[in-house]
Amino acid sequence: MRKKAENMKVLFNPASAAVVGASDKPDKLGFHVMKSLISGGFAGRIIPVNPNSDEIMGLKAFPSLADYNEPIDLAILVLPAKLIPGVFRECAARGVKGIVLITAGFKEIDDPGGADLHEEIAGIANDAGIPVIGPNTFGMINFHTNLNASFTPEFSRLMKGSVALVSQSGGISHLLGFLAMRMDVGFSKIIGLGNRLNVDFDQMVDYLMGDPDTRVIMLYMEGVDNPVRLLETAKKHHGKKPIIINKTGSSAKGDQASRSHTGSMAGRHEIYMGSFSQAGMLAVDHTEALLDTARAFASCPLPDGPGVAVLSGQAGPGMAACDVCEARGLKIVQFTEKTQQKINENLPPLALRTNPVDMGPAWYDASAIEKIAKAAMEDDHVDGILFMMVFASANVDALKGIRGLLEDWAQRKPLISCILSPPGVWDEQIKALEQSGSLINYPTPERAANAMANLWEYKKMQTR
Amino acid sequence: MRKKAENMKVLFNPASAAVVGASDKPDKLGFHVMKSLISGGFAGRIIPVNPNSDEIMGLKAFPSLADYNEPIDLAILVLPAKLIPGVFRECAARGVKGIVLITAGFKEIDDPGGADLHEEIAGIANDAGIPVIGPNTFGMINFHTNLNASFTPEFSRLMKGSVALVSQSGGISHLLGFLAMRMDVGFSKIIGLGNRLNVDFDQMVDYLMGDPDTRVIMLYMEGVDNPVRLLETAKKHHGKKPIIINKTGSSAKGDQASRSHTGSMAGRHEIYMGSFSQAGMLAVDHTEALLDTARAFASCPLPDGPGVAVLSGQAGPGMAACDVCEARGLKIVQFTEKTQQKINENLPPLALRTNPVDMGPAWYDASAIEKIAKAAMEDDHVDGILFMMVFASANVDALKGIRGLLEDWAQRKPLISCILSPPGVWDEQIKALEQSGSLINYPTPERAANAMANLWEYKKMQTR
Repeated sequence: MRKKAENMKVLFNPASAAVVGASDKPDKLGFHVMKSLISGGFAGRIIPVNPNSDEIMGLKAFPSLADYNEPIDLAILVLPAKLIPGVFRECAARGVKGIVLITAGFKEIDDPGGADLHEEIAGIANDAGIPVIGPNTFGMINFHTNLNASFTPEFSRLMKGSVALVSQSGGISHLLGFLAMRMDVGFSKIIGLGNRLNVDFDQMVDYLMGDPDTRVIMLYMEGVDNPVRLLETAKKHHGKKPIIINKTGSSAKGDQASRSHTGSMAGRHEIYMGSFSQAGMLAVDHTEALLDTARAFASCPLPDGPGVAVLSGQAGPGMAACDVCEARGLKIVQFTEKTQQKINENLPPLALRTNPVDMGPAWYDASAIEKIAKAAMEDDHVDGILFMMVFASANVDALKGIRGLLEDWAQRKPLISCILSPPGVWDEQIKALEQSGSLINYPTPERAANAMANLWEYKKMQTR
Repeated sequence: MRKKAENMKVLFNPASAAVVGASDKPDKLGFHVMKSLISGGFAGRIIPVNPNSDEIMGLKAFPSLADYNEPIDLAILVLPAKLIPGVFRECAARGVKGIVLITAGFKEIDDPGGADLHEEIAGIANDAGIPVIGPNTFGMINFHTNLNASFTPEFSRLMKGSVALVSQSGGISHLLGFLAMRMDVGFSKIIGLGNRLNVDFDQMVDYLMGDPDTRVIMLYMEGVDNPVRLLETAKKHHGKKPIIINKTGSSAKGDQASRSHTGSMAGRHEIYMGSFSQAGMLAVDHTEALLDTARAFASCPLPDGPGVAVLSGQAGPGMAACDVCEARGLKIVQFTEKTQQKINENLPPLALRTNPVDMGPAWYDASAIEKIAKAAMEDDHVDGILFMMVFASANVDALKGIRGLLEDWAQRKPLISCILSPPGVWDEQIKALEQSGSLINYPTPERAANAMANLWEYKKMQTR
């Protein structure tokens, strides 16, 4: 077991990667895996293995793993299931440190032969101490070493970042990846667990807790064979890095699908939800919320308490944010006298000057907005700031005016915004502020407020 | 009252529009209103009114409304509040048919003078039978006549379409507009009610029910002075066009903000929610859901029952959709024997062939996917189809393969999809299918399933 744990590091950071079943035919998965490795920019040695080719994508191909004489760290297998036991034995013999087993057709199929094969290869891998990602997976990606060991070269378009995804579903992994490209979320790793031959959620959590590139862990789960192990692992690392979990299978049909799909029990949804929370994991109820929440953790400090200031350029979005805050356990605090006085100096009497603050009347005066925001940020009652600003033609420069303040304050208290303009007006400014870590922006006030509520929920768990 | 109702049509379809307080200084709202009218492409006569200018943006300016001798249908007012009663009298004298009163500073301010002014101008407008949008509004837009009578020229970037928005908040109107630009939702009208001098939600609903350009009505509400009138109006038009409503003010703070902001009682949230539903209005709990739901109504037929087929290229997204379906009252039906047989012919035995269908094994065969989808669509048990397809490098042509089927079936049963690729791969194809009315696509399976659930919820209300 210890050897397997040590080999995990090599699995994600190999010096060489062999693709067994490599192909130069675009209708073969082995083609797409080769493309992923090459176009993803993997700096290590890439070794195509295929008995029918001398060369694949410009690289010398070998008939078998045995025919290659240098060390092989990682083997990515895209072969028919029946050939896998033999290749596993070769991997063990060649001292391979990790396997990505893309091939399907093991435990998840009805044929008992599938389960037998599963047991056979599990035995070989465990004896040799080789961690295996899969079977029945698209693969995995380590963005910090440009290792795209998946059949989806497009994953390499994702930004490098600090969010890791461990997922039981290839479909959801791709969905989250493509959504993340549109939201500019940066990833450390994506791991498609598939049918979890000998690497399950608990082992991935254990590994990622020690991974310096990962700050936030997202889990997408359908069913899990050994929930106790995951819960214990999460508890062991309690408070170290946030774990956000989304589990499908709450419906009878979904549950049934889960059993067939990955060969594991989905179990009772409510029991899972309660256990996750007790183990310090943050459960969210839809896929998009995984990304919304992970983004906030990746770039915000945690709030010290539930006190929120809602500052809005228009009353409506501020009210929408307040509704979510109160429903989710955040408090729209009363400002200290000093803060209130400063705000009053910058807003006319007819404005809504208490929390939520309607900054509308200061709309054309970026310095007034800056002073109001600064006063709220400095207020001891305020643990986090929700900042709403919707574009109007007359305030096109509003965002520029508060840039310095955002840069100055972003890492002191969580500041989460909903700043929105017509496409192309503020988008680049917002992106630049986000990439410099000065801002974390959401398309609606409700999603911004939910992100803040999740930061506080985690903080509460952490101190409990 | 009848005169006011007749004038509503002219208000939204004027042959001429005067801007009282027009300006060529970019720091004045009168500048932005002029820009909206001109750059929005309003085909009627535009009459700038300003005693200090002879010409504004290339158009001859007049010192007052009285100095212009031709008929004036619409007057847009951007003047200090104290000047408004005088201009209202001029409007009445000149036979103006409708007013957009952008100016703030009436009932919403603490000063009792504001309420007095409000009463005074309400009296003038009501005596003359002039409907007034505002005060304290950004204005209104009729996309089908290119009339942008707002201080936001950027609204004219929105697509023409069949969704109307009636909103009590300028901030939320802009937010929804800018989100809609990113989601390609087409609008018929956007109306910023502001402080509702004599045009309230009920009158707008009444008007829009008879508006041939509008198929779906979205309401964003903070508080309403006369909820009974709105409920009665909604009941009167029961089943004619869907009304989707989002109301903020569920929180104590939001409620308080609502009272200050628009001078009306927000009242108890739960009571409103129940009443809306009884009156046949569909209440949603966040701003994004207004657009998500309106889009579905604008392009889908309604389902005849709760029976849904979930067809997914990958198991995970299908399961996520199933969870939402069951939680929201849709049924994942059992297929007829005939359908099941056809599906079995196109999927190998080890696949998940019952509902939800995992089309993964037919992944590289667009014709198999087409046959499966067609069988499900033709199934009498199936009232609507949720179709999920996440891009993989090997299935880049999958969308092309089902195009004909989508075009053929879109208007027979509701078909709602979550088809997603890396940015730029399928986006144009999806957009084209959406614009031709063959597809309605959402970024996540949960949002797609919620849209379907809302279609069914409305259908149930309609037949009740």
